[in-house]
Amino acid sequence: MKIVIVGLGNIGGSFALAIKESGLNHEVYAIDKDIETLRTAEEQNLIIQGFESPSEIIPKADFIIFSVYPLILEDVVRSYIPYLSDGTIITDVTGVKRNIIGSIEPLLPENVDFIFSHPMAGRENSGLAFASAKVFQGANYLITPTPRNKTENVQFLSQFVKDIGFRNISEITPEFHDEIIGFTSQLTHTIAISLINSDLVERNTKQYTGDSYRDLTRIANINEKLWPELFIMNKDYLVEHIDNFKHQLDKLSTAIKDEDVKTMEEMMVESKVRYHDLHSLDMKE
Amino acid sequence: MKIVIVGLGNIGGSFALAIKESGLNHEVYAIDKDIETLRTAEEQNLIIQGFESPSEIIPKADFIIFSVYPLILEDVVRSYIPYLSDGTIITDVTGVKRNIIGSIEPLLPENVDFIFSHPMAGRENSGLAFASAKVFQGANYLITPTPRNKTENVQFLSQFVKDIGFRNISEITPEFHDEIIGFTSQLTHTIAISLINSDLVERNTKQYTGDSYRDLTRIANINEKLWPELFIMNKDYLVEHIDNFKHQLDKLSTAIKDEDVKTMEEMMVESKVRYHDLHSLDMKE
Repeated sequence: MKIVIVGLGNIGGSFALAIKESGLNHEVYAIDKDIETLRTAEEQNLIIQGFESPSEIIPKADFIIFSVYPLILEDVVRSYIPYLSDGTIITDVTGVKRNIIGSIEPLLPENVDFIFSHPMAGRENSGLAFASAKVFQGANYLITPTPRNKTENVQFLSQFVKDIGFRNISEITPEFHDEIIGFTSQLTHTIAISLINSDLVERNTKQYTGDSYRDLTRIANINEKLWPELFIMNKDYLVEHIDNFKHQLDKLSTAIKDEDVKTMEEMMVESKVRYHDLHSLDMKE
Repeated sequence: MKIVIVGLGNIGGSFALAIKESGLNHEVYAIDKDIETLRTAEEQNLIIQGFESPSEIIPKADFIIFSVYPLILEDVVRSYIPYLSDGTIITDVTGVKRNIIGSIEPLLPENVDFIFSHPMAGRENSGLAFASAKVFQGANYLITPTPRNKTENVQFLSQFVKDIGFRNISEITPEFHDEIIGFTSQLTHTIAISLINSDLVERNTKQYTGDSYRDLTRIANINEKLWPELFIMNKDYLVEHIDNFKHQLDKLSTAIKDEDVKTMEEMMVESKVRYHDLHSLDMKE
Protein backbone atom coordinates (compact mmCIF):
# COMPACT_ATOMS: atom_id res chain seq x y z
CA MET A 1 0.00 0.00 0.00
CA LYS A 2 1.25 3.47 -0.92
CA ILE A 3 0.95 5.78 2.07
CA VAL A 4 1.52 9.53 1.85
CA ILE A 5 2.09 11.48 5.04
CA VAL A 6 1.34 15.17 4.56
CA GLY A 7 3.30 17.22 7.09
CA LEU A 8 6.35 15.48 8.47
CA GLY A 9 6.43 17.12 11.88
CA ASN A 10 6.22 15.52 15.26
CA ILE A 11 3.04 13.49 14.66
CA GLY A 12 3.58 12.85 10.94
CA GLY A 13 7.15 11.76 11.66
CA SER A 14 5.94 9.50 14.46
CA PHE A 15 3.58 7.81 12.00
CA ALA A 16 6.49 7.22 9.60
CA LEU A 17 8.62 5.80 12.42
CA ALA A 18 5.80 3.62 13.78
CA ILE A 19 5.03 2.20 10.31
CA LYS A 20 8.70 1.42 9.80
CA GLU A 21 9.07 -0.26 13.18
CA SER A 22 5.82 -2.22 12.77
CA GLY A 23 7.44 -4.19 9.95
CA LEU A 24 4.34 -3.65 7.78
CA ASN A 25 5.15 -3.77 4.12
CA HIS A 26 3.97 -0.30 3.11
CA GLU A 27 5.56 2.21 0.76
CA VAL A 28 5.72 5.46 2.70
CA TYR A 29 6.08 8.87 1.02
CA ALA A 30 5.82 12.33 2.52
CA ILE A 31 4.94 15.86 1.49
CA ASP A 32 6.35 18.77 3.46
CA LYS A 33 7.16 22.39 2.75
CA ASP A 34 10.57 21.96 4.37
CA ILE A 35 13.00 20.27 2.00
CA GLU A 36 15.59 19.66 4.75
CA THR A 37 13.07 17.60 6.68
CA LEU A 38 12.30 15.53 3.58
CA ARG A 39 15.97 14.85 2.88
CA THR A 40 16.55 13.86 6.52
CA ALA A 41 13.61 11.47 6.41
CA GLU A 42 14.87 9.94 3.17
CA GLU A 43 18.35 9.48 4.62
CA GLN A 44 16.88 7.80 7.69
CA ASN A 45 14.87 5.50 5.41
CA LEU A 46 11.71 6.75 7.06
CA ILE A 47 10.24 7.46 3.63
CA ILE A 48 10.98 6.29 0.13
CA GLN A 49 10.77 9.80 -1.27
CA GLY A 50 9.74 13.27 -0.18
CA PHE A 51 7.82 15.83 -2.21
CA GLU A 52 7.18 19.54 -1.81
CA SER A 53 3.88 19.47 -3.69
CA PRO A 54 1.04 17.00 -4.20
CA SER A 55 0.85 16.73 -8.01
CA GLU A 56 3.20 13.80 -8.50
CA ILE A 57 2.55 11.51 -5.53
CA ILE A 58 -1.03 12.15 -4.38
CA PRO A 59 -2.63 10.56 -7.50
CA LYS A 60 -0.81 7.31 -6.63
CA ALA A 61 -1.74 7.30 -2.94
CA ASP A 62 -3.86 4.51 -1.47
CA PHE A 63 -3.89 6.14 1.95
CA ILE A 64 -3.14 9.73 2.96
CA ILE A 65 -2.48 10.93 6.50
CA PHE A 66 -2.92 14.69 6.85
CA SER A 67 -0.75 15.74 9.75
CA VAL A 68 -0.91 19.52 9.51
CA TYR A 69 -2.13 22.32 11.76
CA PRO A 70 -5.94 22.45 12.04
CA LEU A 71 -6.15 26.03 10.78
CA ILE A 72 -4.51 25.17 7.45
CA LEU A 73 -6.03 21.70 7.00
CA GLU A 74 -9.03 22.93 5.00
CA ASP A 75 -6.86 24.90 2.56
CA VAL A 76 -4.40 22.05 2.15
CA VAL A 77 -7.20 19.56 1.45
CA ARG A 78 -8.81 21.96 -0.99
CA SER A 79 -5.56 22.30 -2.93
CA TYR A 80 -5.16 18.50 -3.03
CA ILE A 81 -8.67 17.78 -4.41
CA PRO A 82 -7.64 17.82 -8.10
CA TYR A 83 -5.04 15.13 -7.47
CA LEU A 84 -7.08 12.65 -5.46
CA SER A 85 -7.81 9.28 -7.08
CA ASP A 86 -10.95 7.22 -6.68
CA GLY A 87 -10.79 4.86 -3.74
CA THR A 88 -8.17 6.77 -1.79
CA ILE A 89 -8.59 6.54 1.97
CA ILE A 90 -7.69 9.64 3.95
CA THR A 91 -7.36 10.49 7.61
CA ASP A 92 -6.20 13.42 9.74
CA VAL A 93 -4.85 13.85 13.26
CA THR A 94 -6.75 16.96 14.33
CA GLY A 95 -7.69 17.44 17.99
CA VAL A 96 -11.17 18.83 17.26
CA LYS A 97 -13.67 17.21 14.96
CA ARG A 98 -17.08 18.90 14.48
CA ASN A 99 -15.68 22.06 12.95
CA ILE A 100 -13.05 20.27 10.83
CA ILE A 101 -15.48 17.69 9.46
CA GLY A 102 -18.08 20.35 8.76
CA SER A 103 -15.67 22.37 6.66
CA ILE A 104 -13.93 19.51 4.84
CA GLU A 105 -16.60 16.94 3.99
CA PRO A 106 -18.44 19.29 1.55
CA LEU A 107 -15.20 19.66 -0.44
CA LEU A 108 -14.63 15.96 -1.03
CA PRO A 109 -15.14 14.12 -4.33
CA GLU A 110 -17.58 11.24 -4.07
CA ASN A 111 -15.18 8.32 -4.39
CA VAL A 112 -12.66 9.46 -1.83
CA ASP A 113 -13.14 8.30 1.76
CA PHE A 114 -11.93 10.77 4.41
CA ILE A 115 -12.20 9.11 7.82
CA PHE A 116 -11.46 11.68 10.49
CA SER A 117 -9.47 10.49 13.48
CA HIS A 118 -7.32 11.58 16.40
CA PRO A 119 -4.28 9.81 17.87
CA MET A 120 -4.27 10.41 21.64
CA ALA A 121 -0.55 10.82 21.74
CA GLY A 122 0.12 14.49 21.56
CA ARG A 123 3.65 15.71 21.94
CA GLU A 124 4.55 19.08 23.31
CA ASN A 125 7.57 19.57 21.05
CA SER A 126 7.22 20.22 17.36
CA GLY A 127 9.26 19.00 14.41
CA LEU A 128 10.53 15.74 13.01
CA ALA A 129 13.43 15.71 15.48
CA PHE A 130 10.95 15.01 18.26
CA ALA A 131 9.06 12.28 16.40
CA SER A 132 9.02 8.92 18.11
CA ALA A 133 7.36 5.57 17.43
CA LYS A 134 7.28 4.86 21.14
CA VAL A 135 4.74 7.58 21.92
CA PHE A 136 2.07 5.66 19.97
CA GLN A 137 2.68 2.35 21.75
CA GLY A 138 -0.31 1.51 23.91
CA ALA A 139 -1.93 4.91 23.38
CA ASN A 140 -5.63 5.45 22.68
CA TYR A 141 -6.92 6.23 19.18
CA LEU A 142 -10.23 7.91 18.39
CA ILE A 143 -12.00 7.46 15.06
CA THR A 144 -15.06 9.62 14.28
CA PRO A 145 -16.89 7.97 11.37
CA THR A 146 -19.57 9.88 9.49
CA PRO A 147 -22.41 8.58 7.29
CA ARG A 148 -20.31 8.99 4.15
CA ASN A 149 -17.52 6.66 5.37
CA LYS A 150 -17.40 3.06 4.12
CA THR A 151 -17.41 0.46 6.88
CA GLU A 152 -14.53 -1.50 5.36
CA ASN A 153 -12.39 1.63 5.22
CA VAL A 154 -13.12 2.44 8.87
CA GLN A 155 -12.11 -1.14 9.66
CA PHE A 156 -8.93 -0.70 7.65
CA LEU A 157 -7.99 2.46 9.57
CA SER A 158 -8.75 0.77 12.87
CA GLN A 159 -6.57 -2.23 12.02
CA PHE A 160 -3.82 -0.02 10.63
CA VAL A 161 -3.42 2.06 13.80
CA LYS A 162 -3.58 -1.12 15.89
CA ASP A 163 -0.80 -2.61 13.77
CA ILE A 164 1.45 0.41 14.35
CA GLY A 165 1.02 0.25 18.13
CA PHE A 166 -2.15 1.96 19.35
CA ARG A 167 -4.12 -0.03 21.88
CA ASN A 168 -7.68 1.12 22.55
CA ILE A 169 -9.25 2.15 19.27
CA SER A 170 -12.69 3.75 19.73
CA GLU A 171 -15.27 4.70 17.13
CA ILE A 172 -17.24 7.66 18.46
CA THR A 173 -19.32 10.50 17.07
CA PRO A 174 -17.63 13.83 16.31
CA GLU A 175 -19.82 15.44 18.98
CA PHE A 176 -18.78 12.96 21.66
CA HIS A 177 -15.15 13.29 20.57
CA ASP A 178 -15.21 17.05 21.07
CA GLU A 179 -17.05 16.77 24.37
CA ILE A 180 -14.58 14.30 25.86
CA ILE A 181 -11.45 15.86 24.37
CA GLY A 182 -12.63 19.19 25.76
CA PHE A 183 -12.39 17.49 29.12
CA THR A 184 -9.38 15.14 29.02
CA SER A 185 -7.12 17.27 26.85
CA GLN A 186 -8.26 20.87 26.56
CA LEU A 187 -9.40 21.43 30.15
CA THR A 188 -6.15 19.89 31.43
CA HIS A 189 -4.12 22.26 29.27
CA THR A 190 -6.05 25.32 30.49
CA ILE A 191 -5.38 24.15 34.06
CA ALA A 192 -1.65 23.64 33.49
CA ILE A 193 -1.30 27.08 31.89
CA SER A 194 -3.26 28.77 34.68
CA LEU A 195 -1.32 26.94 37.40
CA ILE A 196 2.15 27.78 36.14
CA ASN A 197 1.13 31.36 35.32
CA SER A 198 -0.17 31.86 38.87
CA ASP A 199 3.28 31.07 40.26
CA LEU A 200 5.24 33.93 41.84
CA VAL A 201 8.40 33.81 39.77
CA GLU A 202 10.47 35.73 42.32
CA ARG A 203 9.85 32.92 44.82
CA ASN A 204 12.14 30.67 42.72
CA THR A 205 9.63 27.87 43.06
CA LYS A 206 11.68 25.26 41.25
CA GLN A 207 13.95 24.85 44.25
CA TYR A 208 11.05 23.61 46.32
CA THR A 209 8.89 21.51 44.05
CA GLY A 210 7.91 17.90 44.46
CA ASP A 211 6.54 15.52 41.86
CA SER A 212 3.01 16.89 42.03
CA TYR A 213 3.90 20.34 40.67
CA ARG A 214 6.06 18.78 37.96
CA ASP A 215 3.20 16.40 37.01
CA LEU A 216 0.65 19.20 36.77
CA THR A 217 2.83 21.55 34.71
CA ARG A 218 4.33 19.04 32.25
CA ILE A 219 1.84 20.10 29.57
CA ALA A 220 2.35 23.82 30.21
CA ASN A 221 4.98 23.67 27.45
CA ILE A 222 2.26 24.45 24.97
CA ASN A 223 2.38 25.40 21.29
CA GLU A 224 0.74 28.85 21.13
CA LYS A 225 0.31 28.60 17.36
CA LEU A 226 -1.81 25.44 17.63
CA TRP A 227 -3.88 25.54 20.80
CA PRO A 228 -5.83 28.82 20.60
CA GLU A 229 -7.52 27.63 17.42
CA LEU A 230 -8.32 24.24 18.99
CA PHE A 231 -9.81 25.98 22.03
CA ILE A 232 -11.91 28.29 19.88
CA MET A 233 -13.23 25.49 17.65
CA ASN A 234 -14.42 23.66 20.77
CA LYS A 235 -15.27 26.57 23.01
CA ASP A 236 -18.82 25.48 23.87
CA TYR A 237 -17.69 22.22 25.45
CA LEU A 238 -14.45 23.61 26.84
CA VAL A 239 -16.07 26.52 28.68
CA GLU A 240 -18.64 24.11 30.13
CA HIS A 241 -15.86 21.82 31.39
CA ILE A 242 -13.97 24.76 32.90
CA ASP A 243 -17.15 25.82 34.72
CA ASN A 244 -17.75 22.30 36.08
CA PHE A 245 -14.15 22.11 37.26
CA LYS A 246 -14.41 25.53 38.92
CA HIS A 247 -17.58 24.43 40.68
CA GLN A 248 -15.69 21.53 42.28
CA LEU A 249 -12.73 23.76 43.16
CA ASP A 250 -15.04 26.33 44.75
CA LYS A 251 -16.71 23.60 46.79
CA LEU A 252 -13.35 22.40 48.05
CA SER A 253 -12.10 25.93 48.69
CA THR A 254 -15.21 26.71 50.73
CA ALA A 255 -14.76 23.51 52.74
CA ILE A 256 -11.15 24.54 53.49
CA LYS A 257 -12.21 28.05 54.56
CA ASP A 258 -14.95 26.59 56.77
CA GLU A 259 -12.65 23.87 58.15
CA ASP A 260 -15.33 21.46 56.99
CA VAL A 261 -13.43 18.17 57.29
CA LYS A 262 -16.45 16.06 56.38
CA THR A 263 -16.89 17.63 52.93
CA MET A 264 -13.14 17.46 52.28
CA GLU A 265 -13.04 13.80 53.22
CA GLU A 266 -16.04 13.03 51.01
CA MET A 267 -14.44 14.77 48.05
CA MET A 268 -11.14 12.95 48.63
CA VAL A 269 -12.81 9.55 48.96
CA GLU A 270 -14.65 10.26 45.70
CA SER A 271 -11.44 11.31 43.94
CA LYS A 272 -9.65 8.21 45.22
CA VAL A 273 -12.40 5.92 43.90
CA ARG A 274 -12.29 7.68 40.54
CA TYR A 275 -8.49 7.49 40.46
CA HIS A 276 -8.55 3.73 40.98
CA ASP A 277 -11.23 3.34 38.34
CA LEU A 278 -9.18 5.39 35.89
CA HIS A 279 -6.07 3.32 36.50
CA SER A 280 -7.87 -0.02 36.55
CA LEU A 281 -7.54 -0.32 32.79
CA ASP A 282 -4.24 -1.71 31.67
CA MET A 283 -3.15 1.62 30.32
CA LYS A 284 -0.13 3.05 28.69
CA GLU A 285 2.60 3.66 31.22
CA MET B 1 24.76 6.92 65.65
CA LYS B 2 21.56 5.46 67.06
CA ILE B 3 18.59 6.53 64.95
CA VAL B 4 14.99 5.89 65.99
CA ILE B 5 12.28 6.19 63.37
CA VAL B 6 8.89 6.77 64.96
CA GLY B 7 6.15 5.52 62.63
CA LEU B 8 7.29 2.94 60.13
CA GLY B 9 4.84 3.77 57.34
CA ASN B 10 5.57 4.86 53.82
CA ILE B 11 7.88 7.77 54.67
CA GLY B 12 9.40 6.28 57.84
CA GLY B 13 10.03 3.03 55.98
CA SER B 14 11.59 4.92 53.09
CA PHE B 15 13.98 6.58 55.55
CA ALA B 16 14.97 3.15 56.89
CA LEU B 17 15.53 1.84 53.36
CA ALA B 18 17.46 4.91 52.25
CA ILE B 19 19.74 4.75 55.30
CA LYS B 20 20.39 1.07 54.66
CA GLU B 21 21.16 1.61 50.98
CA SER B 22 23.37 4.64 51.67
CA GLY B 23 25.87 2.36 53.39
CA LEU B 24 26.07 4.78 56.34
CA ASN B 25 27.05 3.02 59.52
CA HIS B 26 24.01 3.91 61.66
CA GLU B 27 22.06 1.74 64.07
CA VAL B 28 18.44 2.09 63.08
CA TYR B 29 15.54 1.29 65.41
CA ALA B 30 11.84 1.93 65.00
CA ILE B 31 8.75 2.50 67.07
CA ASP B 32 5.36 1.63 65.63
CA LYS B 33 1.99 0.63 67.03
CA ASP B 34 1.77 -2.22 64.54
CA ILE B 35 3.85 -5.17 65.71
CA GLU B 36 3.59 -6.96 62.33
CA THR B 37 5.26 -4.01 60.62
CA LEU B 38 8.07 -4.06 63.17
CA ARG B 39 8.67 -7.79 62.72
CA THR B 40 8.68 -7.40 58.93
CA ALA B 41 11.21 -4.57 59.15
CA GLU B 42 13.40 -6.65 61.46
CA GLU B 43 13.27 -9.63 59.12
CA GLN B 44 14.23 -7.39 56.19
CA ASN B 45 17.16 -6.05 58.24
CA LEU B 46 15.74 -2.56 57.81
CA ILE B 47 15.99 -2.03 61.55
CA ILE B 48 17.94 -3.67 64.35
CA GLN B 49 14.92 -3.84 66.60
CA GLY B 50 11.36 -2.57 66.75
CA PHE B 51 9.52 -1.26 69.79
CA GLU B 52 5.89 -0.56 70.53
CA SER B 53 6.62 2.14 73.11
CA PRO B 54 9.32 4.75 73.68
CA SER B 55 10.52 3.94 77.20
CA GLU B 56 13.33 1.54 76.31
CA ILE B 57 14.86 2.96 73.14
CA ILE B 58 14.17 6.73 73.13
CA PRO B 59 16.60 7.47 76.01
CA LYS B 60 19.40 5.93 73.91
CA ALA B 61 18.55 7.80 70.69
CA ASP B 62 21.02 10.25 69.14
CA PHE B 63 18.58 11.16 66.38
CA ILE B 64 14.82 10.70 66.18
CA ILE B 65 12.73 10.98 63.02
CA PHE B 66 9.05 11.47 63.76
CA SER B 67 7.18 10.14 60.79
CA VAL B 68 3.60 10.21 62.05
CA TYR B 69 0.39 11.96 60.96
CA PRO B 70 0.46 15.71 61.72
CA LEU B 71 -2.68 15.57 63.85
CA ILE B 72 -1.12 13.11 66.32
CA LEU B 73 2.44 14.48 66.23
CA GLU B 74 1.94 16.86 69.16
CA ASP B 75 0.50 14.12 71.39
CA VAL B 76 3.21 11.65 70.44
CA VAL B 77 5.97 14.17 71.14
CA ARG B 78 4.35 15.10 74.45
CA SER B 79 4.31 11.44 75.52
CA TYR B 80 7.98 11.05 74.53
CA ILE B 81 9.24 14.07 76.52
CA PRO B 82 10.03 12.12 79.73
CA TYR B 83 12.33 9.76 77.78
CA LEU B 84 14.37 12.27 75.78
CA SER B 85 18.07 12.56 76.59
CA ASP B 86 20.17 15.71 76.51
CA GLY B 87 21.69 16.32 73.10
CA THR B 88 19.19 14.31 71.10
CA ILE B 89 18.50 15.70 67.65
CA ILE B 90 14.94 15.34 66.37
CA THR B 91 13.20 15.97 63.10
CA ASP B 92 9.77 15.40 61.59
CA VAL B 93 8.36 15.02 58.08
CA THR B 94 5.23 17.11 58.35
CA GLY B 95 3.91 18.97 55.30
CA VAL B 96 2.97 22.14 57.22
CA LYS B 97 5.26 23.98 59.59
CA ARG B 98 3.99 27.13 61.32
CA ASN B 99 1.23 25.37 63.19
CA ILE B 100 3.29 22.28 64.06
CA ILE B 101 6.30 24.27 65.29
CA GLY B 102 4.08 26.60 67.28
CA SER B 103 2.50 23.72 69.15
CA ILE B 104 5.58 21.56 69.67
CA GLU B 105 8.46 23.93 70.48
CA PRO B 106 6.94 25.06 73.81
CA LEU B 107 6.86 21.42 74.97
CA LEU B 108 10.54 20.71 74.42
CA PRO B 109 13.18 20.34 77.17
CA GLU B 110 16.06 22.79 76.81
CA ASN B 111 18.79 20.40 75.73
CA VAL B 112 16.89 18.62 72.98
CA ASP B 113 17.14 20.04 69.45
CA PHE B 114 14.02 19.55 67.31
CA ILE B 115 14.79 20.72 63.77
CA PHE B 116 11.60 20.68 61.75
CA SER B 117 11.86 19.54 58.16
CA HIS B 118 9.95 18.23 55.16
CA PRO B 119 11.10 15.68 52.57
CA MET B 120 9.56 16.66 49.23
CA ALA B 121 8.92 13.09 48.28
CA GLY B 122 5.35 12.35 49.25
CA ARG B 123 3.87 9.07 48.27
CA GLU B 124 0.21 8.53 47.65
CA ASN B 125 0.11 5.03 49.12
CA SER B 126 0.43 4.40 52.82
CA GLY B 127 2.20 1.67 54.74
CA LEU B 128 5.64 0.08 54.89
CA ALA B 129 4.86 -2.07 51.85
CA PHE B 130 5.01 1.08 49.70
CA ALA B 131 8.22 2.42 51.22
CA SER B 132 11.06 2.91 48.76
CA ALA B 133 14.56 4.35 48.97
CA LYS B 134 14.30 5.39 45.33
CA VAL B 135 11.67 8.04 45.95
CA PHE B 136 14.17 10.12 47.94
CA GLN B 137 16.89 10.00 45.27
CA GLY B 138 17.35 13.46 43.79
CA ALA B 139 14.30 14.87 45.58
CA ASN B 140 14.17 18.25 47.31
CA TYR B 141 14.39 18.57 51.09
CA LEU B 142 13.18 21.56 53.10
CA ILE B 143 14.55 22.40 56.55
CA THR B 144 12.86 25.15 58.59
CA PRO B 145 15.31 26.17 61.35
CA THR B 146 14.09 28.26 64.27
CA PRO B 147 16.09 30.43 66.70
CA ARG B 148 16.34 27.58 69.21
CA ASN B 149 18.12 25.21 66.77
CA LYS B 150 21.90 24.78 66.99
CA THR B 151 23.73 25.52 63.74
CA GLU B 152 25.80 22.35 63.91
CA ASN B 153 22.67 20.24 64.30
CA VAL B 154 21.03 21.90 61.30
CA GLN B 155 24.22 21.14 59.39
CA PHE B 156 24.10 17.54 60.59
CA LEU B 157 20.51 17.12 59.35
CA SER B 158 21.36 18.74 56.03
CA GLN B 159 24.33 16.41 55.50
CA PHE B 160 22.36 13.38 56.68
CA VAL B 161 19.54 13.82 54.15
CA LYS B 162 22.09 14.53 51.44
CA ASP B 163 23.88 11.29 52.32
CA ILE B 164 20.68 9.27 51.97
CA GLY B 165 19.92 10.67 48.53
CA PHE B 166 18.17 14.03 48.64
CA ARG B 167 19.61 16.60 46.26
CA ASN B 168 18.54 20.22 46.83
CA ILE B 169 18.47 20.87 50.55
CA SER B 170 17.03 24.29 51.41
CA GLU B 171 16.92 26.11 54.73
CA ILE B 172 13.85 28.35 54.76
CA THR B 173 11.58 29.97 57.30
CA PRO B 174 8.44 28.13 58.43
CA GLU B 175 6.38 30.96 56.90
CA PHE B 176 8.03 30.65 53.50
CA HIS B 177 7.74 26.86 53.70
CA ASP B 178 4.00 27.05 54.21
CA GLU B 179 3.57 29.66 51.52
CA ILE B 180 5.41 27.68 48.87
CA ILE B 181 4.07 24.27 49.89
CA GLY B 182 0.59 25.76 49.74
CA PHE B 183 1.38 26.40 46.09
CA THR B 184 3.46 23.47 44.84
CA SER B 185 1.81 20.72 46.83
CA GLN B 186 -1.52 21.74 48.34
CA LEU B 187 -2.89 23.76 45.41
CA THR B 188 -1.94 20.97 43.00
CA HIS B 189 -3.81 18.44 45.12
CA THR B 190 -6.95 20.61 45.26
CA ILE B 191 -6.76 20.90 41.46
CA ALA B 192 -6.36 17.15 40.91
CA ILE B 193 -9.30 16.38 43.22
CA SER B 194 -11.51 19.00 41.55
CA LEU B 195 -10.56 17.84 38.06
CA ILE B 196 -11.27 14.15 38.58
CA ASN B 197 -14.45 14.92 40.51
CA SER B 198 -15.73 17.10 37.66
CA ASP B 199 -15.57 14.13 35.30
CA LEU B 200 -18.85 12.63 34.08
CA VAL B 201 -18.42 9.05 35.19
CA GLU B 202 -21.04 7.68 32.79
CA ARG B 203 -18.92 8.93 29.89
CA ASN B 204 -16.36 6.21 30.69
CA THR B 205 -13.59 8.73 30.27
CA LYS B 206 -10.74 6.29 30.78
CA GLN B 207 -11.24 4.87 27.28
CA TYR B 208 -10.37 8.22 25.77
CA THR B 209 -7.63 9.72 27.89
CA GLY B 210 -4.18 10.77 26.83
CA ASP B 211 -1.14 11.43 28.96
CA SER B 212 -2.29 14.89 30.04
CA TYR B 213 -5.33 13.66 31.98
CA ARG B 214 -3.28 10.88 33.56
CA ASP B 215 -0.57 13.40 34.55
CA LEU B 216 -3.04 15.78 36.13
CA THR B 217 -4.93 13.14 38.11
CA ARG B 218 -2.00 11.07 39.38
CA ILE B 219 -2.18 12.77 42.79
CA ALA B 220 -5.97 12.43 43.04
CA ASN B 221 -5.31 9.17 44.90
CA ILE B 222 -5.26 11.16 48.10
CA ASN B 223 -5.26 10.08 51.75
CA GLU B 224 -8.43 11.61 53.20
CA LYS B 225 -7.24 11.03 56.76
CA LEU B 226 -4.12 13.17 56.24
CA TRP B 227 -4.86 16.00 53.83
CA PRO B 228 -7.86 17.83 55.34
CA GLU B 229 -5.79 18.63 58.43
CA LEU B 230 -2.85 19.82 56.29
CA PHE B 231 -5.20 22.05 54.27
CA ILE B 232 -6.76 23.52 57.42
CA MET B 233 -3.41 24.22 59.10
CA ASN B 234 -2.35 26.18 56.01
CA LYS B 235 -5.67 27.58 54.89
CA ASP B 236 -4.60 31.22 54.70
CA TYR B 237 -1.92 30.56 52.09
CA LEU B 238 -3.83 27.78 50.35
CA VAL B 239 -6.99 29.81 49.79
CA GLU B 240 -4.87 32.68 48.44
CA HIS B 241 -3.16 30.33 45.98
CA ILE B 242 -6.49 28.88 44.86
CA ASP B 243 -7.77 32.43 44.24
CA ASN B 244 -4.68 33.37 42.21
CA PHE B 245 -5.01 30.20 40.16
CA LYS B 246 -8.73 30.87 39.56
CA HIS B 247 -7.90 34.39 38.44
CA GLN B 248 -5.63 32.99 35.71
CA LEU B 249 -8.18 30.35 34.73
CA ASP B 250 -10.92 33.00 34.49
CA LYS B 251 -8.69 35.15 32.31
CA LEU B 252 -8.06 32.22 29.96
CA SER B 253 -11.71 31.18 29.97
CA THR B 254 -12.78 34.71 29.05
CA ALA B 255 -10.22 34.79 26.22
CA ILE B 256 -11.63 31.50 24.90
CA LYS B 257 -15.23 32.79 25.07
CA ASP B 258 -14.20 36.02 23.32
CA GLU B 259 -12.06 34.16 20.76
CA ASP B 260 -9.27 36.47 21.89
CA VAL B 261 -6.30 34.71 20.28
CA LYS B 262 -3.83 37.40 21.33
CA THR B 263 -4.45 36.92 25.06
CA MET B 264 -4.37 33.13 24.69
CA GLU B 265 -1.07 33.30 22.82
CA GLU B 266 0.43 35.61 25.44
CA MET B 267 -0.62 33.29 28.25
CA MET B 268 0.78 30.28 26.41
CA VAL B 269 4.09 31.96 25.63
CA GLU B 270 4.34 32.90 29.31
CA SER B 271 3.55 29.34 30.44
CA LYS B 272 6.12 27.95 27.99
CA VAL B 273 8.84 30.27 29.31
CA ARG B 274 7.99 29.29 32.88
CA TYR B 275 7.94 25.61 31.95
CA HIS B 276 11.44 25.80 30.51
CA ASP B 277 12.66 27.71 33.54
CA LEU B 278 11.16 25.09 35.84
CA HIS B 279 12.82 22.26 33.97
CA SER B 280 16.14 24.04 33.51
CA LEU B 281 17.37 22.74 36.85
CA ASP B 282 18.79 19.28 36.69
CA MET B 283 15.84 17.87 38.55
CA LYS B 284 14.64 14.52 39.66
CA GLU B 285 13.25 12.62 36.69
